[in-house]
Amino acid sequence: MIFMTKIIGDALPNIPWQDKPTACHEPIWRYSGNPIIQRHGTVIANSIFNSAVVPFKDSFAGVFRCDDRAVTMNLYVGFSSDGLDWEISDTPIVFSGEKAVTAVEYRYDPRVTKIGDRYYITWCNGYHGPTIGIGYTDDFKHFVQLENAFLPFNRNGVLFPRKIRGNYYLLSRPSDNGHTPFGDIFVSESTDLVYWGRHRFVFGTAPFASSGWQCTKVGAGPVPIETSEGWLLLYHGVINTCNGFVYRMGAALLDREHPDQVLCRTKYYIMGPEMPYEQCGDVPNVVFPCAALADANTGRIAIYYGCADTVTGVAFTTVDELISFMKSHSI
Amino acid sequence: MIFMTKIIGDALPNIPWQDKPTACHEPIWRYSGNPIIQRHGTVIANSIFNSAVVPFKDSFAGVFRCDDRAVTMNLYVGFSSDGLDWEISDTPIVFSGEKAVTAVEYRYDPRVTKIGDRYYITWCNGYHGPTIGIGYTDDFKHFVQLENAFLPFNRNGVLFPRKIRGNYYLLSRPSDNGHTPFGDIFVSESTDLVYWGRHRFVFGTAPFASSGWQCTKVGAGPVPIETSEGWLLLYHGVINTCNGFVYRMGAALLDREHPDQVLCRTKYYIMGPEMPYEQCGDVPNVVFPCAALADANTGRIAIYYGCADTVTGVAFTTVDELISFMKSHSI
Amino acid sequence: MIFMTKIIGDALPNIPWQDKPTACHEPIWRYSGNPIIQRHGTVIANSIFNSAVVPFKDSFAGVFRCDDRAVTMNLYVGFSSDGLDWEISDTPIVFSGEKAVTAVEYRYDPRVTKIGDRYYITWCNGYHGPTIGIGYTDDFKHFVQLENAFLPFNRNGVLFPRKIRGNYYLLSRPSDNGHTPFGDIFVSESTDLVYWGRHRFVFGTAPFASSGWQCTKVGAGPVPIETSEGWLLLYHGVINTCNGFVYRMGAALLDREHPDQVLCRTKYYIMGPEMPYEQCGDVPNVVFPCAALADANTGRIAIYYGCADTVTGVAFTTVDELISFMKSHSI
Amino acid sequence: MIFMTKIIGDALPNIPWQDKPTACHEPIWRYSGNPIIQRHGTVIANSIFNSAVVPFKDSFAGVFRCDDRAVTMNLYVGFSSDGLDWEISDTPIVFSGEKAVTAVEYRYDPRVTKIGDRYYITWCNGYHGPTIGIGYTDDFKHFVQLENAFLPFNRNGVLFPRKIRGNYYLLSRPSDNGHTPFGDIFVSESTDLVYWGRHRFVFGTAPFASSGWQCTKVGAGPVPIETSEGWLLLYHGVINTCNGFVYRMGAALLDREHPDQVLCRTKYYIMGPEMPYEQCGDVPNVVFPCAALADANTGRIAIYYGCADTVTGVAFTTVDELISFMKSHSI
Amino acid sequence: MIFMTKIIGDALPNIPWQDKPTACHEPIWRYSGNPIIQRHGTVIANSIFNSAVVPFKDSFAGVFRCDDRAVTMNLYVGFSSDGLDWEISDTPIVFSGEKAVTAVEYRYDPRVTKIGDRYYITWCNGYHGPTIGIGYTDDFKHFVQLENAFLPFNRNGVLFPRKIRGNYYLLSRPSDNGHTPFGDIFVSESTDLVYWGRHRFVFGTAPFASSGWQCTKVGAGPVPIETSEGWLLLYHGVINTCNGFVYRMGAALLDREHPDQVLCRTKYYIMGPEMPYEQCGDVPNVVFPCAALADANTGRIAIYYGCADTVTGVAFTTVDELISFMKSHSI
Amino acid sequence: MIFMTKIIGDALPNIPWQDKPTACHEPIWRYSGNPIIQRHGTVIANSIFNSAVVPFKDSFAGVFRCDDRAVTMNLYVGFSSDGLDWEISDTPIVFSGEKAVTAVEYRYDPRVTKIGDRYYITWCNGYHGPTIGIGYTDDFKHFVQLENAFLPFNRNGVLFPRKIRGNYYLLSRPSDNGHTPFGDIFVSESTDLVYWGRHRFVFGTAPFASSGWQCTKVGAGPVPIETSEGWLLLYHGVINTCNGFVYRMGAALLDREHPDQVLCRTKYYIMGPEMPYEQCGDVPNVVFPCAALADANTGRIAIYYGCADTVTGVAFTTVDELISFMKSHSI
Repeated sequence: MIFMTKIIGDALPNIPWQDKPTACHEPIWRYSGNPIIQRHGTVIANSIFNSAVVPFKDSFAGVFRCDDRAVTMNLYVGFSSDGLDWEISDTPIVFSGEKAVTAVEYRYDPRVTKIGDRYYITWCNGYHGPTIGIGYTDDFKHFVQLENAFLPFNRNGVLFPRKIRGNYYLLSRPSDNGHTPFGDIFVSESTDLVYWGRHRFVFGTAPFASSGWQCTKVGAGPVPIETSEGWLLLYHGVINTCNGFVYRMGAALLDREHPDQVLCRTKYYIMGPEMPYEQCGDVPNVVFPCAALADANTGRIAIYYGCADTVTGVAFTTVDELISFMKSHSI
Repeated sequence: MIFMTKIIGDALPNIPWQDKPTACHEPIWRYSGNPIIQRHGTVIANSIFNSAVVPFKDSFAGVFRCDDRAVTMNLYVGFSSDGLDWEISDTPIVFSGEKAVTAVEYRYDPRVTKIGDRYYITWCNGYHGPTIGIGYTDDFKHFVQLENAFLPFNRNGVLFPRKIRGNYYLLSRPSDNGHTPFGDIFVSESTDLVYWGRHRFVFGTAPFASSGWQCTKVGAGPVPIETSEGWLLLYHGVINTCNGFVYRMGAALLDREHPDQVLCRTKYYIMGPEMPYEQCGDVPNVVFPCAALADANTGRIAIYYGCADTVTGVAFTTVDELISFMKSHSI
Repeated sequence: MIFMTKIIGDALPNIPWQDKPTACHEPIWRYSGNPIIQRHGTVIANSIFNSAVVPFKDSFAGVFRCDDRAVTMNLYVGFSSDGLDWEISDTPIVFSGEKAVTAVEYRYDPRVTKIGDRYYITWCNGYHGPTIGIGYTDDFKHFVQLENAFLPFNRNGVLFPRKIRGNYYLLSRPSDNGHTPFGDIFVSESTDLVYWGRHRFVFGTAPFASSGWQCTKVGAGPVPIETSEGWLLLYHGVINTCNGFVYRMGAALLDREHPDQVLCRTKYYIMGPEMPYEQCGDVPNVVFPCAALADANTGRIAIYYGCADTVTGVAFTTVDELISFMKSHSI
Repeated sequence: MIFMTKIIGDALPNIPWQDKPTACHEPIWRYSGNPIIQRHGTVIANSIFNSAVVPFKDSFAGVFRCDDRAVTMNLYVGFSSDGLDWEISDTPIVFSGEKAVTAVEYRYDPRVTKIGDRYYITWCNGYHGPTIGIGYTDDFKHFVQLENAFLPFNRNGVLFPRKIRGNYYLLSRPSDNGHTPFGDIFVSESTDLVYWGRHRFVFGTAPFASSGWQCTKVGAGPVPIETSEGWLLLYHGVINTCNGFVYRMGAALLDREHPDQVLCRTKYYIMGPEMPYEQCGDVPNVVFPCAALADANTGRIAIYYGCADTVTGVAFTTVDELISFMKSHSI
Repeated sequence: MIFMTKIIGDALPNIPWQDKPTACHEPIWRYSGNPIIQRHGTVIANSIFNSAVVPFKDSFAGVFRCDDRAVTMNLYVGFSSDGLDWEISDTPIVFSGEKAVTAVEYRYDPRVTKIGDRYYITWCNGYHGPTIGIGYTDDFKHFVQLENAFLPFNRNGVLFPRKIRGNYYLLSRPSDNGHTPFGDIFVSESTDLVYWGRHRFVFGTAPFASSGWQCTKVGAGPVPIETSEGWLLLYHGVINTCNGFVYRMGAALLDREHPDQVLCRTKYYIMGPEMPYEQCGDVPNVVFPCAALADANTGRIAIYYGCADTVTGVAFTTVDELISFMKSHSI
Repeated sequence: MIFMTKIIGDALPNIPWQDKPTACHEPIWRYSGNPIIQRHGTVIANSIFNSAVVPFKDSFAGVFRCDDRAVTMNLYVGFSSDGLDWEISDTPIVFSGEKAVTAVEYRYDPRVTKIGDRYYITWCNGYHGPTIGIGYTDDFKHFVQLENAFLPFNRNGVLFPRKIRGNYYLLSRPSDNGHTPFGDIFVSESTDLVYWGRHRFVFGTAPFASSGWQCTKVGAGPVPIETSEGWLLLYHGVINTCNGFVYRMGAALLDREHPDQVLCRTKYYIMGPEMPYEQCGDVPNVVFPCAALADANTGRIAIYYGCADTVTGVAFTTVDELISFMKSHSI
């Protein structure tokens, strides 16, 4: 395979992978063993779905959203040797830190970003409403919680995997205190991961009549993948049908030095709920990408996504597939 | 088979058909090969569902609602030799006409009515909100768009297949600009398909306590079939459950010379979402009839309907089955 | 007074009039005797507010919206020698006509348009929801009702006072079945006042951030006044505050031969609710213009408007005041 | 089997039963032949779901909610020799009684309580809105309707199976006139089943952050089972997701002499919609328990529950399983 | 004055009174000194409005809704020698009784009914939502609270001033837990003021198109006045305008022995918000009658009503004025 | 006058002032010349209401919210020699700064905080929704805009008048994108007025049943006044009646070194809409404090507040009046 867009990052030879089925004409294809994590993946789990997976030592570690059988939301650590078969803890992650910060009502929808040797976790944090929590771990055993990045109400906080022009950059989607029927993506900067500012609009919803699948809200998905073309951002877009929201996946390219500048963005969605495990579950019709592994050597990308807010799936693509699709079906 | 109600129209010996299964006690039965058109029936399709099918030359032609992968709504032409296996175009229909009329935001939910030798298309047309677009073709290659019949907001415009007392007649359902939670059927007249008036109420929703499936809204479905008993109108009725709208199919008989007079109307629905492809999809629990073929020789009727706003199904009945059912379960 | 814009129409030397107060810097000024009609202006009246006044013989006649003490809405005829002091009937207008047309649930918000020697009345007509009723009288004694112009749901139907390029022209504002929180102005054509078509968008709401007073909905007010510059249309615009709608008055100029083309439109409102009788009443904070008298000799204009959906007021301007204001504060 | 909690009641040796699958780690397990009643279980049925089943003579009788094909709601009697295979009537139950009481708009969601030798039925009764209807039968052939227990709006009325401190006790959930988005459980007393009073709050919803599955509303399910530990109440709890309500099952223990005192209540749900017939149907994602059989000899309990408002399922547990689960996962 | 309808009750020679102004053509006229109680009528009062006034010894006593400056709602006792000038307590009424009953969240909108020598108070009582509280006093010094009549949600509980066919009768209006946008009047019976049943619908809202002022909700006002024609019930009716609810007053006649039977009911309202103190205040546009004094000797009636949820007004009528108006303007 | 609480700040001998009327029993009294600024206070003004006033040189300067006659919101500078009679500019303030920051949709509800010799302005700033804008001026001629403090959606940003423990502190109220029906007060810190963090909850709404006037939302008002007891914060509280929001004024004391710690807070409101200019206007029933002057010598405080979103009023109190009232009527 010749690929032209270069992933800026490490090789990941053990990335989970299946070749594209010959009958598939789409830029992304599902893992044949989906869902990789069932709803009762742990004894107390009602559902395990929005996953945050990273290479860790010679294998993989992750932080998982697990709603327990009380349907309370929390974060759990998990490990896997192949990225597909996961052992997930039965007890939620305990964060050390200032009590005013760690005493939260709930945690959900984590992302994990490696910066240097440290693994930062960002998630939706229940502090008088949903906002963006930040913490870190060096070993997936001990976790430290930092200050919340923002005031409520916010969701889908995603940290860039390196400093840009000297600052940390954090994507997020300002929200309200319910099932928010709107939502645009912004980026904020920080020198120290405590104080945030220089907030900039990145992109918002698209018109119903020209790109309906993302006309109600959009939110950042996995940690952006740095490529020679720009930051590759997978995101979710939502349309509000008469019978509820449908969550689908799209992709955008952001400028490497000025991530609030959008270079390219899919007019077409790249994956939507079509399989029974995506169409049926606690929240029907949800495909929600939260993590991606990328192999700089081959351009392969494995995407982890929540299915119907109930189980976890994996899908595959390559940086070339995705970027060529984006360029030919851009907004 | 002896039948007592006569279909006023042409013989259609090649109408798609399956006999009623012996175990079936209902007035309508599904085609065993449903859905006949899958959601990715064309390369760019997200879904193909509300179909408008007519006999054309020795085979069949149709105008299809296809939402592409941007989930934008448009009309596409298709052809079939047997009415079941369809070739649908990858590019939307282009209408010629006055630019102020053809420059619309979206087109969806077409119906095709043959009057004389011309095939008229009516659809939901995005002109500052949904309204009823009208166009025609003689050959399913060249399409001309006429003036919108009405001001916004309107949906489910269905043209009668002949003039009545000298005028064209058009059914429609006034709406609002969202997921309209109400809706009654009206009929309007025109001498020239441009100016419309003499609007009359035909029928509306039924009380929740006596015919709940049609208590939220009703809308005309396929082009009415003229019979010796009256115009046979298949329509959809909607109930609003705590988890969304459910769309089912009913039937009414309208007076042949005064179509605003309802002779009979089903208290019971005649088909509802029960199959997985009707219960799951982009909009769960939708059975939405948009076209019907009828054979005057045998009384056979083949109904095309959208399933869960995602795929297309076919169901069968006969004029006698339907009218005897209507008469024994009338409102 | 030298005036540059010419009113195309009749002289009206007995037009009600007060000169502009010297301290007034605004394009419109209120009659010092406002409100001219009190809420109990007739024995059975709860409120009399949205008036339709025309010169008639040597004096004035009008059709009034009076909500009686059951708060049911209907039309009543009234007469006045000076246009300020009115005698209004205690019994509603009875329309002759086809029973399917005249048997309506309510009538409100009339406008009266003289075309030739006939006085046409358009109003919001309750036929399975609000739509535009049309009738006429030659003598303000006998009234004939014609077909409804449109399907429901519609309000604020206003007929142009002459045929344009051979057709009748009717402004209206498509609505929903409640306290519609949206609304744009359209124009439709007819050859015979029965069948209507060639519907065109005229203008809609303005952005909240640039002309907030008209960001929720707009609707045509009095019958347009033909001037050498174009059709002068007074209209209402609405903003939705946290404590309800506020209705104010604006003005637009429409092309004389193509009334869907907007030549000019006020960014600033020209009158809003400021007086106690405009701020308090059955619906607080409403200024709703429904009629205007114009004197071609002097350019004087007397505007009749409903106040707080309770009483009737009059305000004055001249065609020059208004058009110079429009041109200097246009959107 | 040694069991420690004693069911206060009769032996029921023919209770439907399947042993717990070895792989099952949950307190309740589904019948392998679910659903036991299909949606078209009778010729006119659209759906048969919320069942009220009791031992009757040597077999079983029941009162079923069947929505017919008009989707009107009514009660139907049924009989079964094994509690799993049911014969359900095609015609609704006719109640004798005062006409002002029996002339109702609809009946749904029945419960059947045996007190002495009489079978009392409570249900949601359409009298100017939903309220609690009460009737009785001695033979499941003749049915008598008594006065409604309450004013509208109320649902989920469940009668205790004996008098407590001399009075009848009735659980219920005050509601509104729509798809009520709130709801707590109350208990009321009566000396004669006609006049009700001494209304007490029993328990309400739980906080979203600590027991989310029951944060929107709760309602009593089957007739409480008397045990040595207290009244065992199965109930439903609801969460409102962005795509609709999810109904799950929980359990509580109420004091035997003061049923408004809650001794214990599950923080975790005990069963939720996971099977296709629970996730898909006329109302997706509904598990709604309405009846339970209990065998005092073995502690076995068979729970009947509605699935997706469409079909009927059965699940099994024992009093010990349930109470030990409740005690280890209590709010 | 000759009057034909006889008030069944005591003479009340010191009833507050003003003769009807000669210019008044309406059935009710306001006291010229309105409002009789200002919003800061006590030091801690934000507003004092919905009053319950009765003759007591040789003068008058009352129970008042006073919202204090925390805008918390409670009941306060007051006394007056002339019924117009009131001394109202600074501290709320303390009720003795069972703690589970008296420990309520709020009390508002009282009515006082004398039955025998005892003064019963009914009010809207905050027990897990609004319901109907009942208490009594013999001396307006000591107050005892009984059981709540109903489950939540209910408002406007009004007790008839004598037993009817052996039972107590209580009017009420089932509600929801917010600013209820619906509401009909029901009547319930009790033998002991503790257990209530035999609930019957009395009357509901009227159609928007025929009696719009009472199309959204209706609720009982003062204690019914027994007359030779039937129970004279003053009530409030509400319409929902685009800028909020408007509360007006109407009247009905109920059968003396079967109070659920409506003999007559005003199509026209009898008083609506027209004065500044009725149109402006904490809740604009509210006229809310809560008490009435009647003199059997003269037929005079003095009505106490809340104005804009802020102050208290008085209006006058006679039984003959009212009943002749009702009969000539009945629904 | 002896006063016990000391204002920490400058003497302001020319503070506007009127002594407390003898009949007044309340902690705050209105200026007898209210409103001090009328709605048409400038030629282009529709309304001038939420004012930010500070001592400047020997007189006073201010930044005013003026909605012009397009009802667009912007900030205008004004000057006054006595704090009561104001000259307000006809053209909005122009801010210099980075274009991405200054190019906003609207500006409203300013506060002005003097820190050192610089006057900082915070306001509600339209950047893809309402957020908190920050700028400064040294001379009220040249204005510089800094970065927005937060992501949308936020309102009522108020800066403390000195650094606390080395950091700037900013109060705000997270909101949604409409007429937010909720709202709590938070405080955030910054080292440089660009990057903000360490967000802490300060206080939120109070229960409806115990302090109803502030049960819907609360928001900081004028810049906190430092006193020997703590930071004196005037704020607004809102209740949602059936006819709209009512805005009233309350007060709280915050710890001087840890402003997220509430020492005291009024259960009673201290001023509410009672005057015609507070009850009627573009948004009825609004008292909205935005600025306060304080004289350290006398303890006098002059409060500037918006009235009905239309005009500007002034009220007076002293630090002793206020704090003794707070302490005796605390939550």
